Amino acid sequence: MHTKFAKRVTTASRSFTRTILDLTAQSDIISFAGGLPDASLFPKTLFQKYANTLFEKNDNLLFQYSNASGVEALKIEIAKRYEDTSSKAIMLTNGSQQALDLVCKTFLDEQDCIIVEDPSYLAALNLFHMYNADIKTVALDKNGVDLVSLEKLFLTCKPKFFYTIPIFQNPTGYSYTLENKEEVARLAKKYHVILLEDSPYEALRYEGKQSTSFASLLPELTITLGTFSKTLAPDFRIGWIKAPQKIIEALTCSKESTDLQNSKFFQHIAALMMQNGDLETHTKALIKHYKTKRDTMITALEETFGESISFVKPEGGMFIWVNFKNCKDSMQLFDKAIQKGVAFVPGSVFFADKKVSSFGRLNYTNSSLEQIREGVQKLYEAYL
Amino acid sequence: MHTKFAKRVTTASRSFTRTILDLTAQSDIISFAGGLPDASLFPKTLFQKYANTLFEKNDNLLFQYSNASGVEALKIEIAKRYEDTSSKAIMLTNGSQQALDLVCKTFLDEQDCIIVEDPSYLAALNLFHMYNADIKTVALDKNGVDLVSLEKLFLTCKPKFFYTIPIFQNPTGYSYTLENKEEVARLAKKYHVILLEDSPYEALRYEGKQSTSFASLLPELTITLGTFSKTLAPDFRIGWIKAPQKIIEALTCSKESTDLQNSKFFQHIAALMMQNGDLETHTKALIKHYKTKRDTMITALEETFGESISFVKPEGGMFIWVNFKNCKDSMQLFDKAIQKGVAFVPGSVFFADKKVSSFGRLNYTNSSLEQIREGVQKLYEAYL
Repeated sequence: MHTKFAKRVTTASRSFTRTILDLTAQSDIISFAGGLPDASLFPKTLFQKYANTLFEKNDNLLFQYSNASGVEALKIEIAKRYEDTSSKAIMLTNGSQQALDLVCKTFLDEQDCIIVEDPSYLAALNLFHMYNADIKTVALDKNGVDLVSLEKLFLTCKPKFFYTIPIFQNPTGYSYTLENKEEVARLAKKYHVILLEDSPYEALRYEGKQSTSFASLLPELTITLGTFSKTLAPDFRIGWIKAPQKIIEALTCSKESTDLQNSKFFQHIAALMMQNGDLETHTKALIKHYKTKRDTMITALEETFGESISFVKPEGGMFIWVNFKNCKDSMQLFDKAIQKGVAFVPGSVFFADKKVSSFGRLNYTNSSLEQIREGVQKLYEAYL
Repeated sequence: MHTKFAKRVTTASRSFTRTILDLTAQSDIISFAGGLPDASLFPKTLFQKYANTLFEKNDNLLFQYSNASGVEALKIEIAKRYEDTSSKAIMLTNGSQQALDLVCKTFLDEQDCIIVEDPSYLAALNLFHMYNADIKTVALDKNGVDLVSLEKLFLTCKPKFFYTIPIFQNPTGYSYTLENKEEVARLAKKYHVILLEDSPYEALRYEGKQSTSFASLLPELTITLGTFSKTLAPDFRIGWIKAPQKIIEALTCSKESTDLQNSKFFQHIAALMMQNGDLETHTKALIKHYKTKRDTMITALEETFGESISFVKPEGGMFIWVNFKNCKDSMQLFDKAIQKGVAFVPGSVFFADKKVSSFGRLNYTNSSLEQIREGVQKLYEAYL
């Protein structure tokens, strides 16, 4: 039964994804490796309250088959987050990973060129690899992407899309400046390239002013992906796509053939939480908690490592991208760190060509303040 | 952005699927068209009870990210339904449509040959078309498939799999005899063909003895799909795959890259309902209700149409496959029936080549006894 896709799936799964998940689940290791929210902060009391509201409405159709694009009330609330957007420009997916998969499944042919930031989100790289895309990279720094390289790629490769995480990027935590974004949008328009804007972290901003999205700079050529996994809970499995209506229609057909629909239950709960302001209140509380965690990790890194490492303080999101300057290959540091009882993700896995890197990605949202301090100390011992 | 897949998706979606769903939602039409369970029978009180049990366990990890293959407790309960099966041979999916999609996505290359029953499940035919499979058909009658044709196809086409719905088939309601199944299994073993056994209806048996599944006749070459959509509720979005462990491992990797995981919440509820015997009790109640509906439709058809139609009384499931002998093209009957205020699905859509057919599929689970009698009368008026 082996086929090209099965082979590519198997190869990709042998990558670092599983290792990360396994490490994060191990109780004797302090893990800065995963990208998990703090499970103790999930607003379960509110979930229970609204779940019972739904049950007591006694709506027979709540558990019946329904349409593929999702609960209208939630699509309306999500549409409000964007300028001049109707619910027809929104569809709901089984987490934003499914959104990414549906875009690939529907629009990507084998050997189509796509452009990704270097480094980029591991599970997206794996997915593009499985679809046998021709993956080209554009360098990313703390201000955004290298515009000269990007234009050259737009011109020479006729890419199907440019996959970008412009706010609190994974793995770097970097955000594009407005100038960089405007220039990317100008180039995309000039060369008619779709921007596939993945924005799972934008609600988790600890300081600085709100970013302008590609969704508002170039709505006619942007497919934006969002999620409630970082603000409500991953198990809700609610991601969304905001895109021109024709693209939403094609993706909805694709969704229907793929799995008919998602469960409406938690979509209704999310809609109620948005309508009643609970999501906003909860997100503010999350920001307070996560900002303290970020600050604790930054202070610990600065006090412990001093000048022996460098990093850019992220204004939001879940990650710090650390340059372990004295260690050319952070994969070696990773092995030593595990022995000391702390995990992080070595930078090389986030590069499309898996090149040796001195960088590492540290997550701070899923550890306690004490674990953050202790983990940084252990990491320093491994680094010495 | 148009690609081969997008084009095939759009073509398929223009098929009858949407018409069926739209008709089923129209309140002024009695619909025998869809394949929906009776929403008034969903055991919502039990759902609410177990939902609150889960909330009150206060398990932080309930809403956190988790593994791709699903909740272990539920996989254990499902494994018990099969002989000598461990939970490692089971994975959970977002409804059984996703199971079908994952099998295609993982194992099917373009122009691979697959075999389907003629007629077969519409959404499966659409999906295989989207994956650009080379679809071959084998005739089906009330005893099973034509074994001579099947062997010829096994021999000449080297099919990747044979897609079969052996119990209460959709659209026909037919079940393979044990002899037919044993012979299919023997041929599959001889020619080393995977049996993709779709079995969504087997729990809804109104009479006759339990069928032997391909899962037990030929476990090493069978991928079996199951679902809770017909016994608990479609919105649970829980399907499952039972297959040799190596296949489950590949499909789990594929699932992980596709949408990471499903929500655990309703998986836990389903597990609790199985552990406590509630699913069994509820299924017995469902069988009683649906048997009455089936009998009501059969009596109405016999009394109203007499010898002018023919059908095989199904021992279970959701459908009656009626031969409207006096009407060569049931698509024309469909148009007249809609004008009279009743809907069914014309047979041609279930054939891979969409050939003209005198058959029609009638669903009885989603109408009241009164609607069944009234709908059959209206259908007769259209038929006259």
